[in-house]
Amino acid sequence: VAVNTLERPLPFKSVVTLVGGVGGAKFADGLARCLPPGSLTAIVNTGDDFTRYGLTISPDLDTVMYTLGGLAHPVNGWGLEGDTAQMLGMLKRYGDDAWFGLFDRDVATHLLRTQWLTQGISLTEVTRRLSDALAIPSPILPMADRVAPTLIDTLEYGVLPFQEYFVRYHWQPTVTRVILPDGIPATRAALDALARADLIIIGPSNPLLSVEPILNCIGVRETIAARRAAGVRCIALSPIVAGQAIKGPAAKLMQELDLPVSASGVADRYEAVIDGFIVQTGDWPYPVAEIGAVSAGGAVGTSGTLSRTLSILETEIVMHSLTDRARLAEEVLTWATRLVD
Amino acid sequence: VAVNTLERPLPFKSVVTLVGGVGGAKFADGLARCLPPGSLTAIVNTGDDFTRYGLTISPDLDTVMYTLGGLAHPVNGWGLEGDTAQMLGMLKRYGDDAWFGLFDRDVATHLLRTQWLTQGISLTEVTRRLSDALAIPSPILPMADRVAPTLIDTLEYGVLPFQEYFVRYHWQPTVTRVILPDGIPATRAALDALARADLIIIGPSNPLLSVEPILNCIGVRETIAARRAAGVRCIALSPIVAGQAIKGPAAKLMQELDLPVSASGVADRYEAVIDGFIVQTGDWPYPVAEIGAVSAGGAVGTSGTLSRTLSILETEIVMHSLTDRARLAEEVLTWATRLVD
Repeated sequence: VAVNTLERPLPFKSVVTLVGGVGGAKFADGLARCLPPGSLTAIVNTGDDFTRYGLTISPDLDTVMYTLGGLAHPVNGWGLEGDTAQMLGMLKRYGDDAWFGLFDRDVATHLLRTQWLTQGISLTEVTRRLSDALAIPSPILPMADRVAPTLIDTLEYGVLPFQEYFVRYHWQPTVTRVILPDGIPATRAALDALARADLIIIGPSNPLLSVEPILNCIGVRETIAARRAAGVRCIALSPIVAGQAIKGPAAKLMQELDLPVSASGVADRYEAVIDGFIVQTGDWPYPVAEIGAVSAGGAVGTSGTLSRTLSILETEIVMHSLTDRARLAEEVLTWATRLVD
Repeated sequence: VAVNTLERPLPFKSVVTLVGGVGGAKFADGLARCLPPGSLTAIVNTGDDFTRYGLTISPDLDTVMYTLGGLAHPVNGWGLEGDTAQMLGMLKRYGDDAWFGLFDRDVATHLLRTQWLTQGISLTEVTRRLSDALAIPSPILPMADRVAPTLIDTLEYGVLPFQEYFVRYHWQPTVTRVILPDGIPATRAALDALARADLIIIGPSNPLLSVEPILNCIGVRETIAARRAAGVRCIALSPIVAGQAIKGPAAKLMQELDLPVSASGVADRYEAVIDGFIVQTGDWPYPVAEIGAVSAGGAVGTSGTLSRTLSILETEIVMHSLTDRARLAEEVLTWATRLVD
């Protein structure tokens, strides 16, 4: 925990981070390590959720929960450390193609979730029960309680459910369009957390597949706008480093959709919602000014297509270790205090 | 496989056995080892079936399938050899009491079954798919495709679902009544198998909890009666040895229900359906005549309350090993040929 290394107490009591899977989960974990228990809330993409063998599976919620619970697989980032594949082996023995990796301990999460959802309990409450049982102090909130499937239109297979694109075909199909469902209300809990937030951070997640599904939920953009109008900062971390995705399909996907594959390309996607942007050192293509106590958030870089100024923090954004997570989170939070000043 | 040790080829082409869990499964396995592939059909109790964590679980079907597939746990008799408890451990971590032992490989069976049932596929077809995948040549047929829960009325807890009585409370409550559901039709496949049978064998299963739920299904008693009228024999094995159950609650239950706890007590329960009865050597309380080729099924013992004669085979009926299963099955089949002569 890096709290004690901070030069001064952080002024944030309610930090909300919007995240998807592994990268976002790691960063959320870094934040949780820097902030007092309970002062971080993660709003998590559920556009990847799907049903397999009758189980309702929420990959991003689970990744965030396992990561914040200290249970995540240290190499994969998703799944549980030390988990086994006995059930998968038996499924294969039954002739099932078993393309989605359902590991044994992980199945317990899906069974309880599915059972409770079937009983009419909301995904928000299900997630609270599970993460409470794992003694995770940071609320983990699904973006929506309604099913909100992200669909991927591909050149090779037409429209695919997300996990078929992502896991079954290892995100190799060429994407022509990401289809987000219309009219999905964000949960009351998520909007309340945003409305109370004194700092909003979009994690280093895939902008199109993880973050935009959250921003797309009814009420999210409006609530963020209202907070910003009240002086609260919304900042984002780039998941692109030197033109490559840190992990997963972000770069390939942006290229296929004719978007600039760069940190500034990501900033462009977030143009309407962010005040500050954190990139890998050397990755920002424009001059970056230093933000001092006197500059009151005015020192900035300029993105190519951005019509306004944006505060930029250049630092080492790739997290290899637990120490990296806390160090990055501490840097980001400290920098954000200067944006607020 | 004991086939070659038989003195003469068995005259049976379609043997049907009615069974419940471990004891019946072992005996069915012995039969399968003595008979040509595909000439044994097991009709299995589904009164124990239940739903847990949203999974439809058929304990007796699984025990028979795993046993005939050579996959059963060698000590427990139920469950899969070498299975692990990762999922159960995680369920407990979530605070679940996890009283029913759902082991990891076993969960694959329940997931596929539940998924297929949800798709409207019958339990008969689900069981066929699973056992085909495990290359089991003997058809395994659920007694019913409809849900047919056996309920247990107890002194301590009132009416309990079967598995709560059996697993959760380890069959320790005092049973006042076994409640079988009314109006459950046997499956067409089960009745067809009985109607084609040239020998019907009630396995050494619990008469009240495993066998009577099968006999209670609409059409079963009638079809057995019709076959017997056509000269086909129906025989049963005692699950009681020297006044004790070989395994499980049979003796305790019979005592609680004021039934004589003995092999002949079991024979009394089957009075209306059997021609022959197999007991542990020394366990039959009446004189037992030898059945010869000339005696045409007429040599008999007499049960206390039976109004008619019954052919008795005394032998070693406890199966400790695979060899025991095949030896017992071979003895029973050989004896049955003499009943038919």
